[in-house]
Amino acid sequence: MNGYPKKVYLNGKILDHKDAKISVFDRGFIFGDGIYEVMTQVNGDFFYADAHLERLSDCLQKVNIDFDVNSLLNDIKRLRKVSDLEFKDCLVYIQVTRGIAPRKHAYPKEVTPTVMMYIMPFELPEINQKHIKAVTTLDYRWGRCDIKMTSLLGNVMVNEYAMKHGAYEAILIREGIITEASHCNVFFTKNNIVYTHPSNNFILDGITRQIVIQLCHDLGIEIRQEAVKEQDIFLMDEVFLTGTTTQIVSVQQINEYSFYKGNNTGPITKKLQEAFLALKKQK
Amino acid sequence: MNGYPKKVYLNGKILDHKDAKISVFDRGFIFGDGIYEVMTQVNGDFFYADAHLERLSDCLQKVNIDFDVNSLLNDIKRLRKVSDLEFKDCLVYIQVTRGIAPRKHAYPKEVTPTVMMYIMPFELPEINQKHIKAVTTLDYRWGRCDIKMTSLLGNVMVNEYAMKHGAYEAILIREGIITEASHCNVFFTKNNIVYTHPSNNFILDGITRQIVIQLCHDLGIEIRQEAVKEQDIFLMDEVFLTGTTTQIVSVQQINEYSFYKGNNTGPITKKLQEAFLALKKQK
Repeated sequence: MNGYPKKVYLNGKILDHKDAKISVFDRGFIFGDGIYEVMTQVNGDFFYADAHLERLSDCLQKVNIDFDVNSLLNDIKRLRKVSDLEFKDCLVYIQVTRGIAPRKHAYPKEVTPTVMMYIMPFELPEINQKHIKAVTTLDYRWGRCDIKMTSLLGNVMVNEYAMKHGAYEAILIREGIITEASHCNVFFTKNNIVYTHPSNNFILDGITRQIVIQLCHDLGIEIRQEAVKEQDIFLMDEVFLTGTTTQIVSVQQINEYSFYKGNNTGPITKKLQEAFLALKKQK
Repeated sequence: MNGYPKKVYLNGKILDHKDAKISVFDRGFIFGDGIYEVMTQVNGDFFYADAHLERLSDCLQKVNIDFDVNSLLNDIKRLRKVSDLEFKDCLVYIQVTRGIAPRKHAYPKEVTPTVMMYIMPFELPEINQKHIKAVTTLDYRWGRCDIKMTSLLGNVMVNEYAMKHGAYEAILIREGIITEASHCNVFFTKNNIVYTHPSNNFILDGITRQIVIQLCHDLGIEIRQEAVKEQDIFLMDEVFLTGTTTQIVSVQQINEYSFYKGNNTGPITKKLQEAFLALKKQK
């Protein structure tokens, strides 16, 4: 397997991963001109598929890629079947690029979007029990992080920075405030209030982020969509990250600073993890 | 021809453009994780090939793609021959991505870079006689514009903005100052002094930009690498853009404001265009 999926969906065809090839003139290759989405299958069903497909559709609209996502779910099911993954926990990757055209920056007039998808077995633990370390670094990505695009070199570089420092994630600082991490959203708690960066052009409004905000409301935990300053990290009680594959993970350490003595997960983080697990079991 | 080159170089092979295909797992497609370069052939010889290849090498190093550019010139010559373009004015496109690996943000350990190149006929006028219109827009690209990467969606979007407004280029404003344009550098003149944004992480240090700075020195024209504020555009005497295919082009209009009455190119712009033409004839 070597880390590759068994099958790849490419523009209606299902292929072995080695045969899944696109033109070098695909704007996804030349310009990073594409949108992507990652979702999971849990207990035999896609987890929040509607929310993921709606976000995909929104992002495609933001960059004027004319593609109707409504047919995708049937194709994903077909792919799931030929991948022998109907009953396994999985990760689904979807990428839609603007399509193939001679290299010119502006959007070409008549072009057919390229759709590539794959499904891979992916074991999500019931609750993410890791207690991870994060490092902080400068958020030098563009100013439209609300668009889930494949022009990801900025994210790749900050993620590489995290790996190099033996960390799970890089927490990003833009003008003194914490935005998000290279592929997760960041939450803090202080005096039983949960804080996370507001949903604007500087973060991706993660589906798990949205779920956690809803869980806070459901559980009667006060949640404020307010950014935390870098200088206030050390005043916080709890820190956790959210993401589609990360779920909810406790941040035990940021740079050299440790948050929890004795226990590695704070009480609010734990409560949210348990509520998230209950949600998964409902699905 | 349909806008595509006759032949494409891909990892040592020379192929028809329709057969030039890469894996969907190429990080150039998945992450925009690649570096590119564009240069021209003028009068049967590559124009400033050393400078272009050196910049390619520098950018590859900045993102830790381990690839030696030294062999490229021979491959380009081979490609030029089979493309029947040995004696024509051409554009050379070079793209090097990190290579093929299962999708994970951080740099994979063992990976072979993908090299894609093509050459197309491209008529450069002796002097760019257009008098172009530009529009201003927000520079929301990332903070490492010194890296000539293929994660170009930001540039694509601002270029599309220019096209939509009937303009040749979008001049970009970051925190009130002019950085560059979507694929050009921007120069102003005021009281016989030439101004352009300093070479730092907010602009790409264009080869033509470097040539123009050198030409200013040679011609005894004072040049200051100082950014111009958006609010001072209307105080400027001349505006021009530089780029590999643009060469030096006079900006006659920014948004609704026209610069020249009667003549469409200022005297310093004209002097630099003529000196640039002389350089090309020497080559």
